[in-house]
Amino acid sequence: MPPSEESRVRAKTVIDRCRKLAGFSERPDSTSRTFLSPPMRDCHQEIGEWLEPLGVEVRIDAAGNLRGFYPGSDRAAPRLLVGSHLDTVPDAGAFDGALGVVLGVALLESLEGVRLPFGIEIIGFSEEEGVRFGTPFIGSRALVGRLDEDLLRHEDAHGTSVRAAIEGFGLKPAEIPAARLKGDVLGYVEFHIEQGPVLEELGLALGAVEAVAGQSKLEFAFLGRANHAGTTPMHLRRDSLAGAAEWISVVEREGKSVPGLVATVGTVEPKPGVANVIAGETRLTLDVRHRVDDVRTRAVDALVRLAQEIATRRGLTVTERTLLSQPSVPMDRGMVEQIEEAIRRTGLKPHRMVSGAGHDAMILAEKVPSAMIFLRTPGGLSHNPEETVRMEDVARALEAGSHLLSLLARSPALERRVKRA
Amino acid sequence: MPPSEESRVRAKTVIDRCRKLAGFSERPDSTSRTFLSPPMRDCHQEIGEWLEPLGVEVRIDAAGNLRGFYPGSDRAAPRLLVGSHLDTVPDAGAFDGALGVVLGVALLESLEGVRLPFGIEIIGFSEEEGVRFGTPFIGSRALVGRLDEDLLRHEDAHGTSVRAAIEGFGLKPAEIPAARLKGDVLGYVEFHIEQGPVLEELGLALGAVEAVAGQSKLEFAFLGRANHAGTTPMHLRRDSLAGAAEWISVVEREGKSVPGLVATVGTVEPKPGVANVIAGETRLTLDVRHRVDDVRTRAVDALVRLAQEIATRRGLTVTERTLLSQPSVPMDRGMVEQIEEAIRRTGLKPHRMVSGAGHDAMILAEKVPSAMIFLRTPGGLSHNPEETVRMEDVARALEAGSHLLSLLARSPALERRVKRA
Repeated sequence: MPPSEESRVRAKTVIDRCRKLAGFSERPDSTSRTFLSPPMRDCHQEIGEWLEPLGVEVRIDAAGNLRGFYPGSDRAAPRLLVGSHLDTVPDAGAFDGALGVVLGVALLESLEGVRLPFGIEIIGFSEEEGVRFGTPFIGSRALVGRLDEDLLRHEDAHGTSVRAAIEGFGLKPAEIPAARLKGDVLGYVEFHIEQGPVLEELGLALGAVEAVAGQSKLEFAFLGRANHAGTTPMHLRRDSLAGAAEWISVVEREGKSVPGLVATVGTVEPKPGVANVIAGETRLTLDVRHRVDDVRTRAVDALVRLAQEIATRRGLTVTERTLLSQPSVPMDRGMVEQIEEAIRRTGLKPHRMVSGAGHDAMILAEKVPSAMIFLRTPGGLSHNPEETVRMEDVARALEAGSHLLSLLARSPALERRVKRA
Repeated sequence: MPPSEESRVRAKTVIDRCRKLAGFSERPDSTSRTFLSPPMRDCHQEIGEWLEPLGVEVRIDAAGNLRGFYPGSDRAAPRLLVGSHLDTVPDAGAFDGALGVVLGVALLESLEGVRLPFGIEIIGFSEEEGVRFGTPFIGSRALVGRLDEDLLRHEDAHGTSVRAAIEGFGLKPAEIPAARLKGDVLGYVEFHIEQGPVLEELGLALGAVEAVAGQSKLEFAFLGRANHAGTTPMHLRRDSLAGAAEWISVVEREGKSVPGLVATVGTVEPKPGVANVIAGETRLTLDVRHRVDDVRTRAVDALVRLAQEIATRRGLTVTERTLLSQPSVPMDRGMVEQIEEAIRRTGLKPHRMVSGAGHDAMILAEKVPSAMIFLRTPGGLSHNPEETVRMEDVARALEAGSHLLSLLARSPALERRVKRA
């Protein structure tokens, strides 16, 4: 059953709007929109113009998040949050983040004025990518009460603090506590492009994210002895790069041997790094992710041990340093099941999947039932101006969103809330 | 039989003089002396002061080489060239190059005024390292007629040409042809530190170099697809760095499997080169050397083929570009044998070896019978301020040099020359 004509028309609007937002950029020829930069104001303005005709009250909270509230049938009804982030990486595509906000707007439009037993708050987070301050999730942290003094002091490359950026945008840091979520939240739903090849490989439009994978990031340094590449016979070498290369192959093998594990060496830096000198020192990074923390930490431990075995056998030494060890964040089980059901009702096969990348939903999940719907990403291509999304898939996402709203309107979770209210 | 007391005293002087020359530097706290830089003048001055009391005529030729001629018993006698280079790498040690010149001076001193049936010309080459102009052997090329217009136009980082540098030093480029070797050369002998670990490993002070290895230098680029390290499952990756790493291990294995072969990957550059992105492109260099050209080119061909096999199996592509393919240069067989005999007469076991690094002797060998004597290099350490040489080994080298002069004085090669004259 293909998506309806109406969904297709709305999907086309969604895509056009995402492309329009991509034009609000710090650079003339590419999309780059960091935390509270001037084009963010244009972005807010534009989204506001879409929302106001729907009877939505739009405001920018003290963390720079756009928040548009569409009330429920009853002023005291709880609210469902729908959103994603409005900032981008440098030289970005049009859909990472923006799509989740624009889809939320389209969902409200598809209600055509009908009130639900819950309100819907559209949120466009001010910061998720971590580009400007090197720290991600500034926007969503404010909603869970974690935009603290420490984070406010972080500075960008020009020495401007988060606090000063907020003030410079005409907002009041003192009002950050008011940006926090209240007790009336039913849950958070985030539509986002997958940014990976899994759905495309499976031939599926949509996926229900059941967890954001935990992540370990480490730095390794193999130490050997720098020597002349011409005068040092093979058997007298202590080649740190040859050791590191052997280990990179081990990392790949380990990644492949454990279902759901990804293990990546993305950087390698031999020193002195010239063609005719055996590298005396080689530094590399390791990125390991899995939905089960125990599986991830066991894999990391094994890779550290194997690095040491390789080093010892080769007369090298190896040291490692953990840069990040972030636990997996499960999405709300009830929400995930309702998303699966909503996908099923569009005529598609639901597919549960793990997000290998971090998202605002991971932060919101600390406080409210959260879940995500992934859209197939052609070529898995993201963080790239070539990033696209299929119109058909956006139409499916809209239909799934509408089914989800219906399901939530009749959900036991809502009933419990309404009873309590 | 240990070296004589006299040799030890002379060896101490040699080492002290090398250290003194190391003080003539472009930098206050380290040794750096490039082609015709101001400290090169101090260096010439100093060596001149050692040579003049011996009745040596010292001049600087138009390529900036120091040339000091100690006549033979007969003004028409042929000449033996003894020398090495006086330029250094940045942050150099005191012995690479300089030792060969200073040892030549000490050899003349040890003659104590005795005239041989051949003259001896001490040469301090102006340029061997290729630091200032990116092209090595400027000094020795002048002697074989290869310091041509093209090379004279090469520019350093400040846009100064070789020609301008020569003029700036007060020399006349028009006189470069006069720097060429004449027909009266018996041969060229170069003492040089090994700059590798082989003699130390064997417990030997001296080695007779029978060839300078041929060298191939190539650049490889593995191309895959850059993707998010978190969202791209292992089986859907086209990881250029994982492919490159597998190949680095193959290079090492190939190097170890062929006697006398050295094969080195000294640089590797994954792009984008960040921890959470699978590298879409990885560039690396390959340096392969062997004394037999055929063995070297076969190894290179095999490594190119294996890179292609790895790339194909992984859904990558690989391209390669040859940056250098320099044939092996054999040293003069008769000279090598006499060096071996000279070493034997000092009471040491002679050891024939291949030089993995290029030297001026390789250039001189184009025109005159040339050979080299390597001195053990503690730790194989060179191109480094920690570079040293053992006093005992220098004493041995002096004794071997004296024996070599005696052997050459009675050699058939000399007899043939004298007959012809």
